[in-house]
Amino acid sequence: MSEEQNIFKNIQDKQEKSLAERVADQINQLILDRNIQQGDKLPNEFELAESLNVGRGTIREAVKLLVARNCLEIRRGKGTYVTEKIGQVNDPLGFAYVSDKVVLAEELLEVRLELEPWIAYLAAQRINDDEKVELKEHCDRLEECILSGQDHNKFDNEFHMFIAKCTHNSVLAELLPIVTYSIQMFTKFRDPELLKNTILTHREITNAICDKDAEKSRMAMYKHVESNRASIKLLNKK
Amino acid sequence: MSEEQNIFKNIQDKQEKSLAERVADQINQLILDRNIQQGDKLPNEFELAESLNVGRGTIREAVKLLVARNCLEIRRGKGTYVTEKIGQVNDPLGFAYVSDKVVLAEELLEVRLELEPWIAYLAAQRINDDEKVELKEHCDRLEECILSGQDHNKFDNEFHMFIAKCTHNSVLAELLPIVTYSIQMFTKFRDPELLKNTILTHREITNAICDKDAEKSRMAMYKHVESNRASIKLLNKK
Repeated sequence: MSEEQNIFKNIQDKQEKSLAERVADQINQLILDRNIQQGDKLPNEFELAESLNVGRGTIREAVKLLVARNCLEIRRGKGTYVTEKIGQVNDPLGFAYVSDKVVLAEELLEVRLELEPWIAYLAAQRINDDEKVELKEHCDRLEECILSGQDHNKFDNEFHMFIAKCTHNSVLAELLPIVTYSIQMFTKFRDPELLKNTILTHREITNAICDKDAEKSRMAMYKHVESNRASIKLLNKK
Repeated sequence: MSEEQNIFKNIQDKQEKSLAERVADQINQLILDRNIQQGDKLPNEFELAESLNVGRGTIREAVKLLVARNCLEIRRGKGTYVTEKIGQVNDPLGFAYVSDKVVLAEELLEVRLELEPWIAYLAAQRINDDEKVELKEHCDRLEECILSGQDHNKFDNEFHMFIAKCTHNSVLAELLPIVTYSIQMFTKFRDPELLKNTILTHREITNAICDKDAEKSRMAMYKHVESNRASIKLLNKK
């Protein structure tokens, strides 16, 4: 076991563990050791029970724990697979349990207002030609959705996530969903003026990034998040 | 059920769920509805089985899932409790599964270099008198630890986390551990010159924040993280 894996293990071992939990850790280790990739199939119950020298019932329990931790997923009739986003959980900071959601929204937006303009700045410097095409498609889709009067939340989200991906820093790509999480709770805007503004600012951001104009991208994103923040403040006062 | 809770539920419901998983969600809902606080005891198995109209076996299974998600913890002989950091997991972004740890370290440091100077900037503006005393204590402890030749990782970490707490933005306080996670894997510095430098920069940061000099705090933190980054780059080349 390498040093970093050891440290990871130590962090996990802080709490006393049941047999199923220990076996879950062993399955994780097996995924690392055998270099089983995200989306790949796990060896079946029999094999695992033999490899780890425990009963099949324990394997089943351990697998359930790993499903709960979003490391594995069971596809009915097909077997058990390593999830595409292994170990990543919805709402890792437990925002759903925060009782003052208005304060939470303001705190999240403060972080977004710092993080996202910088993400746009990096994306403009690092975007490649294929990604430019894809970013424009994201922007088009979002625009069409707004113009047709549908809920554009999903496409809006995907647009911002894609920009984070264009930074080519995987930590940023994974971090952004955490700060945008639960912001959707507050986007109930149906005001035509605001929607028109949404179309304009997203186009502005897209063009600046595709032009590889980092400063302009930063400013356009700042303006966009700041205007969201102002709208949400207004909404929360109502 | 309020709208935001509903949205949260929808996110969770994306995947098909087993009975135990659905009951786990119901227990979460019960925690919210009854306003059971972090660190509080959960009603016992009998009560839960009756309230949710399922068997005790299902409750036990659901509780195991919530333990795996770090929502509940079982204290032997005492009962089941809501965890202090409900829903928050170690390593929520699955860094332990990233195979290229050198690239990961560089990506994490790029994010830290943007985030931490800003955190120091906000902390300087918002720190109160009690927190000033505590920050100085953190700095003293770290210094003593380094001077006595012990591993200062833990105190170093606590120092940075405390500064994030001084921003009075709980999202930042929760976010910072994610980006500093696994950085410890790479801090193997025992070079006396570097250790002296660590003492100096932490003192500089502490003084600037306690003076409520936001710009100076930002610069001091930038210098500190940047010098860490340079050392790690060197180390990774060896």
